[in-house]
Amino acid sequence: MEALAYYDGKIGTPSELMVPFNDRVHFFGDGCYDATVGANGKVFLLQDHLDRFYTSAKLLDIRIPMEKEALGTLLTELLQKVDSKVNFVYWQVTRGVEERNHVYTPDIPGKLWVLIRPQTLCDPDVPIALNDEEDTRFFHCNIKTLNLLPSVMTAQRAKCAGFDETVFHRGDIVTECSHSNVSVLKDGVFYSHPNDEFILRGIAKTHIIQACYRLGIPVLEKPFTFEFLKNADEVIVSSSSKFCLRAGTLNGQSVGGKDPATMKAIQDEVLREFYAYTGCTTLEG
Amino acid sequence: MEALAYYDGKIGTPSELMVPFNDRVHFFGDGCYDATVGANGKVFLLQDHLDRFYTSAKLLDIRIPMEKEALGTLLTELLQKVDSKVNFVYWQVTRGVEERNHVYTPDIPGKLWVLIRPQTLCDPDVPIALNDEEDTRFFHCNIKTLNLLPSVMTAQRAKCAGFDETVFHRGDIVTECSHSNVSVLKDGVFYSHPNDEFILRGIAKTHIIQACYRLGIPVLEKPFTFEFLKNADEVIVSSSSKFCLRAGTLNGQSVGGKDPATMKAIQDEVLREFYAYTGCTTLEG
Repeated sequence: MEALAYYDGKIGTPSELMVPFNDRVHFFGDGCYDATVGANGKVFLLQDHLDRFYTSAKLLDIRIPMEKEALGTLLTELLQKVDSKVNFVYWQVTRGVEERNHVYTPDIPGKLWVLIRPQTLCDPDVPIALNDEEDTRFFHCNIKTLNLLPSVMTAQRAKCAGFDETVFHRGDIVTECSHSNVSVLKDGVFYSHPNDEFILRGIAKTHIIQACYRLGIPVLEKPFTFEFLKNADEVIVSSSSKFCLRAGTLNGQSVGGKDPATMKAIQDEVLREFYAYTGCTTLEG
Repeated sequence: MEALAYYDGKIGTPSELMVPFNDRVHFFGDGCYDATVGANGKVFLLQDHLDRFYTSAKLLDIRIPMEKEALGTLLTELLQKVDSKVNFVYWQVTRGVEERNHVYTPDIPGKLWVLIRPQTLCDPDVPIALNDEEDTRFFHCNIKTLNLLPSVMTAQRAKCAGFDETVFHRGDIVTECSHSNVSVLKDGVFYSHPNDEFILRGIAKTHIIQACYRLGIPVLEKPFTFEFLKNADEVIVSSSSKFCLRAGTLNGQSVGGKDPATMKAIQDEVLREFYAYTGCTTLEG
């Protein structure tokens, strides 16, 4: 298949598959998700993503209708039905199907959704353009929920203004980007916001931090200011579908680019892990 | 029909109707809604709700696929297909159907959804039980979006603990309830949080305030503290589907009940308006 959609046991193309009106996601965005890259038939960092997915669901009191291992097998099998070598592998669970009501039936079985489609990964050598906005999201950003309207609106504003991503800050404190984490390098140290309720614990970020450990780059997970980011040696934007990119500009002004050797060492280590895990040798979808 | 669901021109029962996998609501909660009571074939306060609905959509850059007047006609026609005399009339617009992506195609036509089902209105003489929680929602509560997970989780916690509704506060300042507005009476004055980005401008609340004007009750729309609410003469919980209820307890302690005459005057005025508008003489669904 070119692209695949799955809902509660049914498989079809994303444009043909249908879902029931009473799924609670329709009325409350009542669900959570996770996503990664699938390459060469392998779901990259599968266990990390499954662990995070089940934690999101647990925090929302949502019942994923199968065990972790079975879901891992299902995702891998579905990935292998799609023709392309490199794919976006996305899945979500919604709380269940019942009459619209804020309160829900305890232990109602969740509905599992999967979406797999070709994806070409970003060239890590191309710097991206950032802007910034006040972070107006809720205080549950540690959960990967389907309540994503502020990120949608921010991403659209960025795109219309010619930016690739938006740095969020709560007042002076940088949190993350609208759909990525942001970290910085300053004087050889890697800084990133700690994994509290203001950011999603990025799997890509977690693996970048592990790469820093291996490379002997000190890591400080602590809040930093927007001013600190503006003066950083490198500004690193990471996500599970874009891996590890560096910013070239912020609001049209040059940013980072002052520690290219450390930046490249981290990026190379991230790609090395991807190639080793998947046996894939290309970023092309 | 007993209950009716509508999606993009298709009509069915809520348990049978199907919607496409690629509707953006599935991935981002990308839409907004409004709701009211339909009685005796009339959609109560239709124009107010249409005005608010189109404003929500405008703030989210969503295209409602028909004009206000046509939507009003459609809602009234659909209401008349449902057997029950008193109904919950709910409608929403989602941004549209396209491949999952944070950014969207500008001007993509929205998809309209309607849900109508029997509803029995709450007895205004029965006081309700409140608890309280910190308000952890986003900073866009003035828009009636489908990003409702914090309200869902709060409503469920309240129900499990035996409460009817939860008073939200940001620090000391009371905002609203998880799916209602909250106002208080103190020394003959009606206090309510102003219509800023921390609360939804309730249509019921707007009409209660208009009732206060008619009754000669001074109104102050200004932030007040949780302590002020605890010591108020009456605590008023209002929504478009529950109208105007008074709280009897807060976290199990007695609250309000010290100005029953003013409370009753307001409730009577609200019901008078409902009966006059709809020609309905019952609260039974």
